[in-house]
Amino acid sequence: MNNLNWEKGFTLDFALSNGLSKGAKSTVRTVSQMQDMYLDADAAKELVESGDPLVYEFYEVGAPEHEGDVAFGTSITYPGKVGKEYFMTKGHFHTILETAEVYYTLAGSGYMLTEDPEGDVQLHELSPGMVVYVPKRYAHRTINTGDTPLITFFAFRGDAGHDYGTIETRGYRKLILEGEDGKPTVVDNPKWK
Amino acid sequence: MNNLNWEKGFTLDFALSNGLSKGAKSTVRTVSQMQDMYLDADAAKELVESGDPLVYEFYEVGAPEHEGDVAFGTSITYPGKVGKEYFMTKGHFHTILETAEVYYTLAGSGYMLTEDPEGDVQLHELSPGMVVYVPKRYAHRTINTGDTPLITFFAFRGDAGHDYGTIETRGYRKLILEGEDGKPTVVDNPKWK
Repeated sequence: MNNLNWEKGFTLDFALSNGLSKGAKSTVRTVSQMQDMYLDADAAKELVESGDPLVYEFYEVGAPEHEGDVAFGTSITYPGKVGKEYFMTKGHFHTILETAEVYYTLAGSGYMLTEDPEGDVQLHELSPGMVVYVPKRYAHRTINTGDTPLITFFAFRGDAGHDYGTIETRGYRKLILEGEDGKPTVVDNPKWK
Repeated sequence: MNNLNWEKGFTLDFALSNGLSKGAKSTVRTVSQMQDMYLDADAAKELVESGDPLVYEFYEVGAPEHEGDVAFGTSITYPGKVGKEYFMTKGHFHTILETAEVYYTLAGSGYMLTEDPEGDVQLHELSPGMVVYVPKRYAHRTINTGDTPLITFFAFRGDAGHDYGTIETRGYRKLILEGEDGKPTVVDNPKWK
């Protein structure tokens, strides 16, 4: 990552066409890195053994953990399914739970699935040009239900932090699967704890 | 503006092609609304009398003034000049000075001119796909030096607020004018107080 001057400002590239960045830090997630999150364990195992495909990647900046700074980057969730379940991000709460996040959809189609600690679940549809507002207190996961990469630009408070552990341990209350009509359908997650 | 649910989340449209939004609040600025900010008073007067063209507009959401929320929207600065001075936004500090802002360039070309209260001036070039990070404490103004609309998506802390008065009273320390070679050049602002 470039040396970014958070005191005097800087510019950084995030390609509008594909979300990739030369200057930001890249993180990739393949099926094997989130195998237990998917409902169909056999389908997940098969995918891992047949090449362990890339599910998503994101490009981010190491923003100062200060309440006045803004963290930002791009997220690219690839099209695909594990069994009947669409490719998705792990999903996370913010460590400082009372902080929101904005996602601006640059390309692709799918959903932002959110839930708060009390169990309220909201589903927001993503398409190019749509912003989704993830409010304070809601875990958020991007799900690609289309045939092309789902690309978003995101921004949130610099000190918000990421709590992946809660979702990794408990799961989401709801899943999005391909229904018999070929369309996305929301179902209860039988593995939710 | 739509009823936006800041507690449970929502989606809102911001066209990637032109920055316009059906659901967000629109604000427009013509030359007459910022006439005194331009160096060439005669050129400004002439433009106002010959139809008072649109200089810029922005679409924003009325985010809760809470440190955990995120305000966002789009800004469109049109191509044009007042004398030799390129069309630009008024520019502003945040009321809570210690809050940053992110601008993601969707289309067009130009600059983000920033200065802090102590007089440090920074100039950041904008082109499609470039994010400019406006750090805490810096006033920021968008300047269109190209031939097409300069369109950005912006995000900042919900309670940051806008201080337009300081720039309206004092001006910016620097201006960007078209030089004799037809290229943008930075000059001291003789009207700065």
